[in-house]
Amino acid sequence: MPIMMNKVKNAMSNLVGGMMPHGHHHHHHNHHPGGGQPCGPDSLPPRFPYGRPDFLDLSPELLQYSTEHASRPVLTLKRGSRLPWQTGYAEVINAGKSMLNEDQASCEKVFVRKPTGKHRNSTLLEDNGDGTGIPLHFWGVFDGHAGSGAAIMASKLLHRLIRDRLGEICHLLENPSSAPPICLAKNGSPYQAESKKGADKEPEDPDAVSDSTVRFHMEKVVSLESLVMGVIETAFKQMDDLIEKEKASYAISGGCCALAAIHLMGKLYVANAGDSRAIIIRNNEVIPMTNEFTPESERQRLQYLGFLRPELLGNEFTHIEFPRRIQHSELGKKMLYRDHTMTGWAYKTIVEDDLKFPLIYGEGKKARVMATIGVTRGLGDHDLKVYNSNIYIKPFLSCVPEVKVYNLDENKHGPDDVLVMGTDGLWDVTTDKEVADAVSAYLSCCDPSDPMRYTLAAQDLLMRSRGVLKERGWRLPNEKLGSGDDITVFVVPLAGHESET
Amino acid sequence: MPIMMNKVKNAMSNLVGGMMPHGHHHHHHNHHPGGGQPCGPDSLPPRFPYGRPDFLDLSPELLQYSTEHASRPVLTLKRGSRLPWQTGYAEVINAGKSMLNEDQASCEKVFVRKPTGKHRNSTLLEDNGDGTGIPLHFWGVFDGHAGSGAAIMASKLLHRLIRDRLGEICHLLENPSSAPPICLAKNGSPYQAESKKGADKEPEDPDAVSDSTVRFHMEKVVSLESLVMGVIETAFKQMDDLIEKEKASYAISGGCCALAAIHLMGKLYVANAGDSRAIIIRNNEVIPMTNEFTPESERQRLQYLGFLRPELLGNEFTHIEFPRRIQHSELGKKMLYRDHTMTGWAYKTIVEDDLKFPLIYGEGKKARVMATIGVTRGLGDHDLKVYNSNIYIKPFLSCVPEVKVYNLDENKHGPDDVLVMGTDGLWDVTTDKEVADAVSAYLSCCDPSDPMRYTLAAQDLLMRSRGVLKERGWRLPNEKLGSGDDITVFVVPLAGHESET
Repeated sequence: MPIMMNKVKNAMSNLVGGMMPHGHHHHHHNHHPGGGQPCGPDSLPPRFPYGRPDFLDLSPELLQYSTEHASRPVLTLKRGSRLPWQTGYAEVINAGKSMLNEDQASCEKVFVRKPTGKHRNSTLLEDNGDGTGIPLHFWGVFDGHAGSGAAIMASKLLHRLIRDRLGEICHLLENPSSAPPICLAKNGSPYQAESKKGADKEPEDPDAVSDSTVRFHMEKVVSLESLVMGVIETAFKQMDDLIEKEKASYAISGGCCALAAIHLMGKLYVANAGDSRAIIIRNNEVIPMTNEFTPESERQRLQYLGFLRPELLGNEFTHIEFPRRIQHSELGKKMLYRDHTMTGWAYKTIVEDDLKFPLIYGEGKKARVMATIGVTRGLGDHDLKVYNSNIYIKPFLSCVPEVKVYNLDENKHGPDDVLVMGTDGLWDVTTDKEVADAVSAYLSCCDPSDPMRYTLAAQDLLMRSRGVLKERGWRLPNEKLGSGDDITVFVVPLAGHESET
Repeated sequence: MPIMMNKVKNAMSNLVGGMMPHGHHHHHHNHHPGGGQPCGPDSLPPRFPYGRPDFLDLSPELLQYSTEHASRPVLTLKRGSRLPWQTGYAEVINAGKSMLNEDQASCEKVFVRKPTGKHRNSTLLEDNGDGTGIPLHFWGVFDGHAGSGAAIMASKLLHRLIRDRLGEICHLLENPSSAPPICLAKNGSPYQAESKKGADKEPEDPDAVSDSTVRFHMEKVVSLESLVMGVIETAFKQMDDLIEKEKASYAISGGCCALAAIHLMGKLYVANAGDSRAIIIRNNEVIPMTNEFTPESERQRLQYLGFLRPELLGNEFTHIEFPRRIQHSELGKKMLYRDHTMTGWAYKTIVEDDLKFPLIYGEGKKARVMATIGVTRGLGDHDLKVYNSNIYIKPFLSCVPEVKVYNLDENKHGPDDVLVMGTDGLWDVTTDKEVADAVSAYLSCCDPSDPMRYTLAAQDLLMRSRGVLKERGWRLPNEKLGSGDDITVFVVPLAGHESET
């Protein structure tokens, strides 16, 4: 993600702090933290050391090699290693905008089960690996900015938080035919209000739910699906809170966009907080599974906050949007503007307050919140401030994803139907349609029994967005500029779960 | 619009205050204003007397007759009178929920022209009727609640406000091929920043705009269309401000949803603030032109305000949504909830604060803001309070419409292609598809040269939603309950402007 700061210095401190494989007890010196971007006290160790996803199984030499901006080597799954569902994966580092690859990814199969007594208060169970419980597949793509700490931490922990939150409603998931109860007892078991008839019924009584809708005047029926959505939304929030909390003990640099796909009980939940993107390709048709959250797409939400809480703008920014900066000499003239309620533009007479910098400024990829950050949702960024000021950006950022549901079991999928998840490095230079056409064309030429076909398709997509190095930079076949950003791609076959049990 | 209050008393005071044809100098006694719904000091005259739209040209006897709840007579355009574009119109009063018909409508052809010196500071020019200027067609549907004052006032004035705001940018409308300038001089003429080269160019210079995009770093290009949208948005705001201002001098009761269609220079702008609805029917296909704004559709916006400004909830409401009321005995248990960031549901432990009444409560047509109002956008309601409290609703209501644009000139329309605008009384019992099928079927059987055909189609739609009076109330042909609400319908032929000049 683009962020205005001293990128080289920041990447240096990451490299020093992160590449050293000494773990928690290594105290590094955080040289020259970027202005306005403190990374915590100098003495704190990183929460996790820098690295690439575990499933790539890189040697220290390969890890070092992966950071070469000049050659930008493409990393893929090794032939022989396998991800769940034969998921394909490829990644490449940026062309020099940060020292390290700030993207991260995770792909996990875990099991949802009731919290046991000894684990009840632990937010981060280790998987005991005995394969009992409800299987959950997780794919996560994390696009870091201003450091790789938040992205690495989220790639290690987000799926566990989701799994554990789901564990708390495990007894409801195991009974998917009945709507979840509105109210639970303190210990989490279904609870019937005492003062009503029918309170003595067993909670498992199939009549209990319809009964209670009769008993209570106006009671909403909540679906199990929207309960899972709520779990995912709250798990993102907990992930963000955990980063904030652990910053007291660890150096966790920057923030990250988070895109996660969760397969649970026949449904695919795609949760997005940031500007990564996921699409389903089915019969070569594109089904968009995410919206991007940027200063432009969330303009009104941010302006509304600035309007209601002007103190968050630190007397330096105005919540009103103008099409360009206003000059002092233009005071008293009329300028086009939009406030938080408007979609169209109107003229207003320029007053002193309008000379402040607009909260939202710039267009497209250059749009920024308070001249600082180009995405409006994600994890981390708790310390992020406007350059050379004491104005925090975090209040304007949301850590809550938008969750869309795709009913996998209700649709038939061939071997070429896939979910593609990618960071903005992919989508900046390649449209949904181009990605769909490329994947479909590639897979149709591939041996259907080759377990590497989805990784090869991911690698093909990545090459199309990175391009090749020519005299004038990274170029696509059409001579347009390739993406200079970190790029991460998952290609997940939608028929993949049928081949597993 | 449904609103919880003493409806009969309120309607009485309206009748007394509104039906009397004495105009501004009649001082009526506002008997028993509804609890929590003050209508201003007793001594104030109404801003406009109660009546039906001027184009219906009702005699006092017919006006009285139109209020008969028992028979619910359908009012349509008289044969012989004509609205612009041969627009069809029909209306009917409610089945008794308020004494008077709280819907209002307007249909006007006006001319946009530069403000002249003597009118410059008047917000409400009278049309001088000489037919010069840019023609503007306006259709408005206003669904009042808690009195008819706001709806009547908006039906008389909103189109004038829009016309006058457009008049201020008349010189830009007259030159539609070039993008509007970002900055205007104080007098409204295009202005070039002084400190830049090219500032000495004539404002009419066709190169001026592209020039300025070069001169300024990052300058947004704003389309004329989005300028018209901005005009409409700000005119709604001014209408709302005017109601508030004139409440100091007049009795202006209640509030209203406002739905307006504006035809200007080949484009149809449909602006909606409330739960009225407009659809285009083209080749019997439905094109939705509005979204409804209700406690359910605007839940997150309202919860966000309650979260950021808890003092607006008056210590009686919580911004958190629960699927039902919580009992005191349920403290400490876990309850499903949603906050302003969530779409799904999750469990939270019930604390004392959760026992407050939810800001948003109820489902579908019964959903309410602070147990009071079922619609979240519109005009008026400045005095509306939660029953028996000092908590104002207005901060949670928006007067800004959502504006959608339909390019009339870029599409071919047959005589059966229409825009249907209706208050919720129509749409509550008749789906978009049913309306489209009914209109298409009706018009195809009508003499294409009959100028009454669109009014007859409107009347047909209205009968389908009102039904007929049987032993058990107003019933539709399928025996379902007809709408007991006021119903107002415009049927506007989209080829209508081609027959006029």
